[in-house]
Amino acid sequence: MAKNIITIGREYGSGGYEIGQKIAEEMGYTFYDKELISDLADKIMVSPSFVEKNDENVKEQHLNIFQEIFPIFASNENEDVDYIFREQGKFIVQLAEKGNCVFVGRRADYYLKDNPDALHLFLYADMDFRIRRIADKYNLSDEKAVEKILDMDKRRRTSYEYTTGRKWGDFHNYDRMICTSTFGIDKCVEEIIGLLK
Amino acid sequence: MAKNIITIGREYGSGGYEIGQKIAEEMGYTFYDKELISDLADKIMVSPSFVEKNDENVKEQHLNIFQEIFPIFASNENEDVDYIFREQGKFIVQLAEKGNCVFVGRRADYYLKDNPDALHLFLYADMDFRIRRIADKYNLSDEKAVEKILDMDKRRRTSYEYTTGRKWGDFHNYDRMICTSTFGIDKCVEEIIGLLK
Repeated sequence: MAKNIITIGREYGSGGYEIGQKIAEEMGYTFYDKELISDLADKIMVSPSFVEKNDENVKEQHLNIFQEIFPIFASNENEDVDYIFREQGKFIVQLAEKGNCVFVGRRADYYLKDNPDALHLFLYADMDFRIRRIADKYNLSDEKAVEKILDMDKRRRTSYEYTTGRKWGDFHNYDRMICTSTFGIDKCVEEIIGLLK
Repeated sequence: MAKNIITIGREYGSGGYEIGQKIAEEMGYTFYDKELISDLADKIMVSPSFVEKNDENVKEQHLNIFQEIFPIFASNENEDVDYIFREQGKFIVQLAEKGNCVFVGRRADYYLKDNPDALHLFLYADMDFRIRRIADKYNLSDEKAVEKILDMDKRRRTSYEYTTGRKWGDFHNYDRMICTSTFGIDKCVEEIIGLLK
């Protein structure tokens, strides 16, 4: 019953990254996010910036940009993105074998769906809460923060649904879905750690 | 921040009713479910069985049956169901004014969406867990239990979506969505009570 692998899917601005970090810190777990990308990037011999850029841009979006800039690469680009996603998945499964870790994003809930030690979380929040966080963090107007939030959610949703064939934010894929704005970030950390004990 | 009104939406067989009862018992809160229907039924002068029957059968379904049996009443029936739903909503808002209560089902999350003291929960579970519960409770084969589960979920979804215009199980409408099969019913009760303190 004890779960020692946490996956966190999240709406942009809901505090999922911060919550993941704090859980990892308090539990002494390894926190996987950008490191995962870098490690993976080394493994598949492409630059981290390339992997990172592709991660939240799905095939069609990316293909469109690519076709505009480098028409000659269009057909290969498609396969590259699929290849990166597949490699990321294998990598996440390997990392999870060690246990005691937190994954933020990267569709980890999907790759680890059959791992009985994994607790799958999805974090979201009221729009006002998200606007406040993003506007403050990036020094944006509320209007620009909304634009950024909607754009990032769209990228995450599209990337998730393209890769997994599942619906982003469908409760059936998670053990807990938590609105972080109801009681705030710190209470969420406490609540999630309570589930692990 | 303290929440003393709990609304519980739930998948059939997930244990939402039992969890609601246990929370009410442990917190000394009033538990609203069938009583609510009876009280309401008195209020609007129709028999409890009529209200109950209509509650998880939406307009079209009901209208079809009614048109078959009593073609002359078909046009009124439509309005009757809408009327009952509206009255139920008003009644739930009134009951919630007293605080310290748990509502199971009846679209209470929707009617109380603007009440700052309400904590909105949606409970669900793995299919195997739900089959076990329903098969045992009603002495059904697994196959018949699945049929019953799918049918009841469909009724709840349709009734909810018809009345509220919202999607059943959409995370934006809830503070917490909890898979009851991950750690079991009693752990859920504990977890939810933890949120109230």
